[in-house]
Amino acid sequence: MKLVISHTDPHSRARTGWFDTGRGAVPTPIFMPVGTRAAVKALRARDLCDLDAKIILGNTYHLYLRPGTEVLEGMGGLHRFAGWERPILTDSGGFQVYSLEDLRKVDEGGVTFRSHIDGTKHRFTPESVVETQRSIGSDIAMVLDECPPSQAPREYQENSMERSMRWAGRARAHHLQQPEAYGVPQAQFGIVQGGTHLDLRSRSVEALREIGFDGYAIGGLAVGEPTATMYEVVDHTAPLLPVDQPRYLMGVGTPQNLLECIARGVDMFDCVIPTRNARNGTLFTSAGKLNLRNTRHRTDERPLDERCDCETCRTASRAYLRHLFNVDEITGLTLATIHNVHFYLRLMETARARIADGTYTAWMASTLEEMAKKEVSSEN
Amino acid sequence: MKLVISHTDPHSRARTGWFDTGRGAVPTPIFMPVGTRAAVKALRARDLCDLDAKIILGNTYHLYLRPGTEVLEGMGGLHRFAGWERPILTDSGGFQVYSLEDLRKVDEGGVTFRSHIDGTKHRFTPESVVETQRSIGSDIAMVLDECPPSQAPREYQENSMERSMRWAGRARAHHLQQPEAYGVPQAQFGIVQGGTHLDLRSRSVEALREIGFDGYAIGGLAVGEPTATMYEVVDHTAPLLPVDQPRYLMGVGTPQNLLECIARGVDMFDCVIPTRNARNGTLFTSAGKLNLRNTRHRTDERPLDERCDCETCRTASRAYLRHLFNVDEITGLTLATIHNVHFYLRLMETARARIADGTYTAWMASTLEEMAKKEVSSEN
Repeated sequence: MKLVISHTDPHSRARTGWFDTGRGAVPTPIFMPVGTRAAVKALRARDLCDLDAKIILGNTYHLYLRPGTEVLEGMGGLHRFAGWERPILTDSGGFQVYSLEDLRKVDEGGVTFRSHIDGTKHRFTPESVVETQRSIGSDIAMVLDECPPSQAPREYQENSMERSMRWAGRARAHHLQQPEAYGVPQAQFGIVQGGTHLDLRSRSVEALREIGFDGYAIGGLAVGEPTATMYEVVDHTAPLLPVDQPRYLMGVGTPQNLLECIARGVDMFDCVIPTRNARNGTLFTSAGKLNLRNTRHRTDERPLDERCDCETCRTASRAYLRHLFNVDEITGLTLATIHNVHFYLRLMETARARIADGTYTAWMASTLEEMAKKEVSSEN
Repeated sequence: MKLVISHTDPHSRARTGWFDTGRGAVPTPIFMPVGTRAAVKALRARDLCDLDAKIILGNTYHLYLRPGTEVLEGMGGLHRFAGWERPILTDSGGFQVYSLEDLRKVDEGGVTFRSHIDGTKHRFTPESVVETQRSIGSDIAMVLDECPPSQAPREYQENSMERSMRWAGRARAHHLQQPEAYGVPQAQFGIVQGGTHLDLRSRSVEALREIGFDGYAIGGLAVGEPTATMYEVVDHTAPLLPVDQPRYLMGVGTPQNLLECIARGVDMFDCVIPTRNARNGTLFTSAGKLNLRNTRHRTDERPLDERCDCETCRTASRAYLRHLFNVDEITGLTLATIHNVHFYLRLMETARARIADGTYTAWMASTLEEMAKKEVSSEN
């Protein structure tokens, strides 16, 4: 898989372009809405098409448990199952298993865990996770990694990273032996680990480049470390990765994080923030965040964002949305999700345009300033 | 308000035609999806347009409590608030207040009740409910009535009906004194009461016709009485009502109930069954009801109904919908609701066409037979 770079920003490491998948091209930088269990929460496939989402994310851990690979294989893969024809990236389940804490045990072979649903025992290995993602039929599969706690001592981080690199080698070898599923090729990305230790990150990149992947992810960030530390790790790691392949920063982040990390050379992002915040009534606007549960919206006829052209802003006032949240109507969750996903996707679209016309850095600075200024005033 | 009758069925009392409102014509027979709190649960205004819903229902009791008339007036009425431009009928709140049981007290002047939300004390009178519905700006307003328990003794039913008729007179007088709200005329319907006592139903119709309304509803049914009794009351009551005005059977019912009552001369229906059942995973199809939670749908690639062209049947398999219900995804609630509302609306559309071509009775008989037969087999 090649990243075709059409433009690079003269004042930062930002770049724009596209990469091809078996189900069409994906422009970069790109945000992938999170569709954990074969659906982006509160949205239909049709809504994602209307929003012009180019690629969505699925969770291997959740899909493995429900509906399970047998169902997915029987239905011809996740795309057919969910009625979504564009690309899907699946994470490896490493992060979800890591989140299980007491329910998991890692050894050299893989990880044994208990389902969060019914407590049944399961095992993921680097090889099994390749096969699960093949059953899912995602366009981009991630290798199984171990995500150590961010507070773990350096020695733990080092051993864990080295094991993840051994797992990456096994996953790559197994992936290359698999025949195509559902007649569509599948790319595979390695995941850089190493916590906040820059030398470990360097060694991790080296190991992954030695193996050779279709793209490279930076994992193990946005797990509680300070934002400045996250930027430092990205600053250090991104330039070590191949220039002409996609770079994916996993699980990040806020609109500000996305813009800052694009400037640091990242091409792909996923995060539950836009969808989860929407369901909590926290909406992103060009004038900062807005809390729909606030009584001051009671009779506010304005849309969420006067500069937004999403379905929600075209059809619903703040007063109506506030009412829907106030009375717990499902309709409110959907309308809020549409707006937040639209906000993220349009932010990436604008970022691509600004990189292409050479004004990314200045645009990012003014956008961040406006967001910061208005965050404060919007709570008045 | 006149009901323009274009065709009558030669073998039953079914009729088809339309009536005009300030926001456009409504074809009859018609089903009104229930939008209790300014939203049809799990749907957006856009979805209702796509489904071609001609008129929806709002609940005066719920809208009075939240968002309240002050907000609705400030926002220019319910239509602007909810982004819905087609007609809305609002019930009077009588039924909801009746459902509060211990929280209400009826006297000659009106009904005092405690909010189910916060226990605050409120009072509805025939006059206040006229004004509340004027603030809402519905196209059709219902009079305040008392809905006595179906098991109440005849004397209670009789006194209650007579009081409801006195209330109807007060409501009509007050309605006729109101200026137009939001520049759109509002029709007002009376409600026939009298429980299952046919002579009381006759006297109720007489009293309402004496007052004179834009349309007439049959209330106090589908509150626990046997279906045969409901049909008997409709059989008796509908022909007593003016031929050339709309007849509305409140809170009814199943697809079978709708077809049977159209044959008895009813023009309008509302019911939570399609939307509530959808959220419970019970779907209506031309081959009977289908329970989405059933494991037998696990890998079933078929749509809910092979004869259905709704968005859900065009885009989602039974297996996918079953998965969405199994993992409690909001997306499943929306897709199921779209299908059930579509089923009800298309059933009414077909009923209109069959009345127009003179084959209603035969079509109804075969449709009911198929539904009954398949209900059984679908549970195999």
